[in-house]
Order: sequence, then structure tokens, then C-alpha cells
Amino acid sequence: MSDRSKSWTAALVVIGDEILSGRTQDKNVAQVATWLNDQGIRLAEVRVVPDDSERIGEAVNALRAAHDYVFTTGGIGPTHDDITVDAIAAAFGVPAIVHPGARRILEDYYRDRPGGLTEARLRMARVPEGAELIENPTSGAPGVKMGNVYILAGVPNIAASMLEALTGTLEGGRPVVSVTVGARAAESDVAELLRETEAAHPGVAIGSYPFFKDGRYGANFVIRSEDGELARTTGNDLVTRLRNAGYEPIEGGI
Amino acid sequence: MSDRSKSWTAALVVIGDEILSGRTQDKNVAQVATWLNDQGIRLAEVRVVPDDSERIGEAVNALRAAHDYVFTTGGIGPTHDDITVDAIAAAFGVPAIVHPGARRILEDYYRDRPGGLTEARLRMARVPEGAELIENPTSGAPGVKMGNVYILAGVPNIAASMLEALTGTLEGGRPVVSVTVGARAAESDVAELLRETEAAHPGVAIGSYPFFKDGRYGANFVIRSEDGELARTTGNDLVTRLRNAGYEPIEGGI
Repeated sequence: MSDRSKSWTAALVVIGDEILSGRTQDKNVAQVATWLNDQGIRLAEVRVVPDDSERIGEAVNALRAAHDYVFTTGGIGPTHDDITVDAIAAAFGVPAIVHPGARRILEDYYRDRPGGLTEARLRMARVPEGAELIENPTSGAPGVKMGNVYILAGVPNIAASMLEALTGTLEGGRPVVSVTVGARAAESDVAELLRETEAAHPGVAIGSYPFFKDGRYGANFVIRSEDGELARTTGNDLVTRLRNAGYEPIEGGI
Repeated sequence: MSDRSKSWTAALVVIGDEILSGRTQDKNVAQVATWLNDQGIRLAEVRVVPDDSERIGEAVNALRAAHDYVFTTGGIGPTHDDITVDAIAAAFGVPAIVHPGARRILEDYYRDRPGGLTEARLRMARVPEGAELIENPTSGAPGVKMGNVYILAGVPNIAASMLEALTGTLEGGRPVVSVTVGARAAESDVAELLRETEAAHPGVAIGSYPFFKDGRYGANFVIRSEDGELARTTGNDLVTRLRNAGYEPIEGGI
């Protein structure tokens, strides 16, 4: 059974020159983070690395030793720049092989599609030797689980459907509960108030996130704790303190 | 003078629990990447780390040894969770001090604002001993340059104005030119064609980025090279090859 008292952590490796060139806005960090939190697992670190086998391997090996889980996104398609499976096989010191189950999935998926299961498409059945498959309800080609490393697609809606397939299958602890309070306050005017509120409620962390919206500055204050009741109590206390200081706090944030 | 033949690289450390919790969608990776490319510097790696002094220090020390430049975003505001300056001072083994120039900037900025230069606001004048300032035309409190580490704000529009202030001041090489061609093609159907095109033009890298839009799959092919002429020639060749294979390629991408 899951050890609910342990703090479970994961790391994410985002693989792709397109993120590092600024061409593509990553969406997987936020979606993997949110999903992990629902599983009671904290995303502790992200690395974005280029389409370079050695760099992918370094990141995966460093992170799989340091965390309970590692997720990767990107580089598992059919083209020449999709090298994630080979890089991770090399990182584990095993060959990449065609997985019989993945081949069957692709044979089914491409049976009635023009071209059928071409050599390029069969690339998507390759896994590090010893790996298992992660179901992909969206587009056939499965994700891959190798040890504690979960290899997902880079296209956000496909990554999302692989996460959906994994929901409830990972051991985790208690999800972190967050309570957000917003105010049209300059962060610097409420810095001391925030520090005092955090100190008055051991077991919570309060983050302060300034923004610029509709031509005015403001900030959202996010209270996080694995103890949901404590997070809510602290939120109420912060609302009171902000009100007493002359602000109009908005529960749920701005 | 700048060594134009050298390949200049940078790393980015995104600091903040709010990114790792999934609460905030990061926008700084793409904006720093794009800006760096214009300076002739390639963003080679990104790490996202929590508001934790030790983890920030580890990332900055690992990356400043490996790259020409390191940029950080986040954690330089006035609140208790803004620990970037202290973490980087510790990483360099120097104390954090109040920078006289930064203090003057903040005195001016807050002179006519309610509350004036409070203790919390004065936190934003702190720098690692020996650091220089980066101008912040948007909101007063400056960024910080410590060795080859550039410490920027996390709020994207403030980070952008600090980058603007740094434009043209960093040594770099030739910007990478990218040419994009899109097609309503399944990636797997053109994998071989892409591989051949890349092989026919040494000095270019072609990335293939599948998408799902308006209920249909397609892909954009991005040709990158420091030789702009070569990138354009390859783009034209790819258009021809796609057309010959029965697709309607769209220059500039979909």
C-alpha cells in the first residue's frame, strides 16, 4: 500500500530543440505538475534539454536516482529527430527493441489507414529492453515505462491522454492543497504581513505572486499545505489580516 | 570584439514553486530563448527549481561552469519567499549586501509613493557582493549581474524590460536562422523524405513538430542553421520534395 506519510517527488525532463529555441511554448510542465499533485506526488525539478542523446541520458540518469519518478515529454514520434527511446535505452545500458505489444497496437491502428504500418511508423514500437507500455487512447503509439521513468509524447493532448491512462496507478502521498487569496496590493506593502501569517501557522508555505493586469499591479498569495484544513484556516486568517490592513482581499485569487 | 565563429551558449534557471505546482504557466523560457537567439547565443538548457536556497545554488553553480551565460528568473521581489539573491550570493561564497546604486534607484522610485522606501522594499537593493545592476525601466527594482549570471525578475513583462536593457551588451555569435514549412501530413508519412532532405544539406538541422488543429493532424518542419542562405535553400528544397510527394506545403508554417 501507498505510504501516505512519505513525501513523494518526481522530476520532468522536457525534450526538444523547439522549446529551447523559443519556437514552441511548453505546456507540459504545468499539466504534468497539476496531474502529479492530484496523485500526491510533488514535481520537484524540471530540466529542458535539446534533442541530444547524451544530454537526455545525463538528465534522466541524474534525476531517476534522486526522485521517486521521472517523466519525460517529447521525441517519441516517427521522425529522425525522435531519439528519446534510444537515448533512454542507452542511459539504462540496454538495447532498444521492438516491443511485440506495441507492434500489435500499431498494426491495429494503421490497418485501415493509408500506407499501413511503414518502417517509420514501426519506430514508434521501439522501447528500451525490459520496458512496459503506457496506453495512448488518442493516437495509437504508446508511451513507455522503463523502471521509474515514464516516457510520454510531447504533443500536449497526447501527453494528457497518457497521463489519464496512468491516473491512480502510481504510489503517492497526500495531495498538496492550495488556497489562493488575491489583493490589489503592492507586494512590498504586505511583505511583513505575509511573513507574520506564515510564521503563525507552522506547516504552511505562503507564496506571493505579483502581477500586472488592467494597468495595475497586484498579487496573489498562495497558501500550500498537505493539511487541507490548515491551508483553509490560514487562508481565512490572511483574509482577515489583509482586511485589517485596509485591502479588499479576494478569495480564490485575482 | 565578439568571436563570431564560436558557438555561444546560455542556460536558464527558472526559480519558483508556482511553476512546479502547475499554478503558473511559465512564459520566460520562450522569451529568454528568443531574445538569446537574437544575440547570437543558443539556449542550451533550462532547469526549473523550487524556492529553495540549496537547490538554486546547485543549479546555478553547475550551469555557470558549463555555459557562457546563465540567466535566472524569479525570486527577486520584496517578500519572504524571494531568496534568489541570497541563494546566489551563497553559491558564489560572498555575502549579500545593499548595493548603493540600487538603494538610490529605489529611493528615487519610492520617493513619491505611499510608504516610501520600507524595509521590505529595501530588500530589492540587495545583491551578492561584487555584483553590477541591470536596468529595470518598468518597475524600479533592478536586476543583478554577478559574474556570468544574470538575475532577472519573474514577472514576464519586467523580465522583458530587463532583457531589453541588456540588448546588444553580450558577446555572441551568429543568430540561428530558422525557416518553417508546414503541411497537413502525418509525420510518419514524411519521415523518410525529411531524413533525406536533412542529409542532402549538411549544416542544417530539421525538426519535425506534429500538431492537432481543427480536428486534423499536421506538422511543421523547422530548418535551422547559422547560415541563413543555406536554411532558405533547404526550405525551398523541402517545399519541392513535399509537393512532389503530393502535399501542399505552406511556407512559414501552419
